[in-house]
Amino acid sequence: MKTYLDCFPCFLSQALRAARIATDDEMKIKRVLDKVGMMLKDIPLDSTPPETGRLIYRIVREITGNNDPYKEIKEESTKIALGLYPSLKAKVEESDNDLLLAIKIAIAGNVIDFGANWNFDISEEVEKVLEKDFAICDYDEFERCLNDTEEVLYLGDNAGECVFDRVLIEKIGKKVKYVVRGMPVINDETYEDAIKAGIGEIADIISSGTDAPGTILETCSGEFRDLFYDSKFIISKGQGNYEALSDVDVPIFFLFKAKCEVIARNIGVKKGDIVLKYSVRKDDLAKKRIFS
Amino acid sequence: MKTYLDCFPCFLSQALRAARIATDDEMKIKRVLDKVGMMLKDIPLDSTPPETGRLIYRIVREITGNNDPYKEIKEESTKIALGLYPSLKAKVEESDNDLLLAIKIAIAGNVIDFGANWNFDISEEVEKVLEKDFAICDYDEFERCLNDTEEVLYLGDNAGECVFDRVLIEKIGKKVKYVVRGMPVINDETYEDAIKAGIGEIADIISSGTDAPGTILETCSGEFRDLFYDSKFIISKGQGNYEALSDVDVPIFFLFKAKCEVIARNIGVKKGDIVLKYSVRKDDLAKKRIFS
Repeated sequence: MKTYLDCFPCFLSQALRAARIATDDEMKIKRVLDKVGMMLKDIPLDSTPPETGRLIYRIVREITGNNDPYKEIKEESTKIALGLYPSLKAKVEESDNDLLLAIKIAIAGNVIDFGANWNFDISEEVEKVLEKDFAICDYDEFERCLNDTEEVLYLGDNAGECVFDRVLIEKIGKKVKYVVRGMPVINDETYEDAIKAGIGEIADIISSGTDAPGTILETCSGEFRDLFYDSKFIISKGQGNYEALSDVDVPIFFLFKAKCEVIARNIGVKKGDIVLKYSVRKDDLAKKRIFS
Repeated sequence: MKTYLDCFPCFLSQALRAARIATDDEMKIKRVLDKVGMMLKDIPLDSTPPETGRLIYRIVREITGNNDPYKEIKEESTKIALGLYPSLKAKVEESDNDLLLAIKIAIAGNVIDFGANWNFDISEEVEKVLEKDFAICDYDEFERCLNDTEEVLYLGDNAGECVFDRVLIEKIGKKVKYVVRGMPVINDETYEDAIKAGIGEIADIISSGTDAPGTILETCSGEFRDLFYDSKFIISKGQGNYEALSDVDVPIFFLFKAKCEVIARNIGVKKGDIVLKYSVRKDDLAKKRIFS
């Protein structure tokens, strides 16, 4: 997804929020804003928002000297999510369509995002998402493709959210490679966060190698890129991953809540809507049209 | 009022909004954002927000070549407000405390502000304000000071809003000098807008000479400054005027709706609250303490 003009004030808001979490020193926070302000002119509109996110959080780290400002928040999110885990599992077991509900639960976990949204009550927000209908729901394709695959590449998003991913991974019942960021950025999950959420017991945890708040392939390790392009079934969680990968020519199932007007408009839904969107490889789509 | 860190993303949002109204050319809008971004580092935290607003709208004018982007919006606001005028007058006539209601109506007109707030339905918003209680209400002082004065200096705010001011001015029944901006900035009222609202028939319309979205005295004409410092009774409408004058050592009645968290915190109310606040000259306050 390209960068829209509306993203620019939001970049500054994100910088302010992260800087405030990283330090109490008002002058350092001001310096972060000054530097991000200076940087805006160098952001091309055809870059993706997480590319700028990456630069912003580098500036926050550099000026505040705090390499993982969201560490405590991430730990707290994981604790809260682990507290909800038994009831989420029970909901899935009781459901008539357990796979669809598990998908919805995984999306509900996406409310845990300190990049786009700041004030929220996790369990209340989760309940709201579970009551929602999908605005886009490519569930039939999801089920069909899942039946045809042996292995799933699952691109995680935020710490805490991965507890919700665990519910879906356990329902999928396939071999899963679960991808985390290469280093702390906002509250995105790292290897440590995924381990704390118990993902290590049910999936192979793999680092993408990126320090961006989204799977920007150019910033990932070569090893990860090979794995990505070889994968037949990819689940991508969250806005950051959608923003980074929506124009990549690979079939991906995007699962997220549209948390801002810009992404909602981009995908053709309303802010707050939940989405299970299949982005098909363009040559596959061409074949489908020829043979159908 | 000083500039808070939260003002910085808001400056960029305001620049984006004004630039979009001024032009459809995305590259020009981007250049406005670039230039405002570059300027952020030069904004001292002890300057007032309208000082920066002034620079932002200069940049918008310079890059888009549009000197009055809000011209049509202002005309439309005035038309809508004039349509509401008879019912507002009737409300005042029917009220038990007609002066207090007229003050509230003048504040209700302050919902017409394209600087801080973008999407709204004027008549619906006005009704909401009229149903509200004041969060700060220095009405007794207002009534007392009004009885002691022959002449009122009334600092106007936005186009359209001045129709609501007219209701208060007519109720006050004193000689009023009504102050407008020196040139178009956002949707702030100029001489032309005040005339269209019918203010010319009931008050002397005077330009402050400023091109800022607030009465920053250093940017006003010397003639206006003399008038300001000689005035015994000053009414200041809107956030921009409050931000510019809250630390000036002159007794002023501030009438506004707190439209953002920053100003709400500054004055000790909640966002959305309405305020009639008397800011007393410090030496007057000292005298009062000695003699009371």
